[in-house]
Amino acid sequence: MHEAMKIVIITERSILEGVAAIRDEKGATGYTHTPAGGKGPRGVRNLGRAAVSGLQTNVRIESIVADRTAAEGIIEAVAERYFEDYSGIAYVMPVEILRPHKFKV
Amino acid sequence: MHEAMKIVIITERSILEGVAAIRDEKGATGYTHTPAGGKGPRGVRNLGRAAVSGLQTNVRIESIVADRTAAEGIIEAVAERYFEDYSGIAYVMPVEILRPHKFKV
Amino acid sequence: MHEAMKIVIITERSILEGVAAIRDEKGATGYTHTPAGGKGPRGVRNLGRAAVSGLQTNVRIESIVADRTAAEGIIEAVAERYFEDYSGIAYVMPVEILRPHKFKV
Repeated sequence: MHEAMKIVIITERSILEGVAAIRDEKGATGYTHTPAGGKGPRGVRNLGRAAVSGLQTNVRIESIVADRTAAEGIIEAVAERYFEDYSGIAYVMPVEILRPHKFKV
Repeated sequence: MHEAMKIVIITERSILEGVAAIRDEKGATGYTHTPAGGKGPRGVRNLGRAAVSGLQTNVRIESIVADRTAAEGIIEAVAERYFEDYSGIAYVMPVEILRPHKFKV
Repeated sequence: MHEAMKIVIITERSILEGVAAIRDEKGATGYTHTPAGGKGPRGVRNLGRAAVSGLQTNVRIESIVADRTAAEGIIEAVAERYFEDYSGIAYVMPVEILRPHKFKV
């Protein structure tokens, strides 16, 4: 068992590569992104036809980092660079990684 | 740092809009949905061809709300309206939102 | 309120059915999978064109099981069978299921 911190950033797909670059700069070794739709105070995003067709204009990015300090560094950098101009939400939670020496991702 | 509660509801895509309406009624300001496949006691859902083609008949809906009371109100309303007739699972977990004043979603 | 353990396994889509079979053997009654892209130490996976077109070569599998012992049994079996040859990461976290008697999945 190995304690770690999970980061989730949900934001606009157009900045996925920029967010990924920040994570790389900050030393995160991997992340996973899934297509997402949804609704925020700005209004509905692809809840109707696009959700059926599979198009998703948002992206949900998750990553596991060593600890809270690493998590905060990434999220603050993303927020400073993008969240004045793009929609986004970010949160963290502790997780336990099982048998990390087996994982190659 | 800001403590909050994350809700996840995994259910059939056909009721996504109805679930979203309940969340709006209950005051949740945003949510994210991702296409999903899976398997429950009722049997396999699109594990084969559909998973390859990208079709997903389920949906995973997540939302951040202020506290456990808000989370329970949403989940109980969804369960009462839909979970007699539709497949679904719902769970909550605490999360920490970083720098919420920066987020616009 | 009902305490449970959430498992997340993020791995290559080609072994989704094999991972699902292990879960069935171990007694998990359901799971949800979402298409995913991402990046690990081995390099970028479909961050560019494929992310736009909706193609995702990874899969994010989540499941709720009764407790930590059940979670570890599944993850260790998956790691032993696949994680020498396939990319993957797995983690667990406690969740609370609300009103589980209502759920049919």
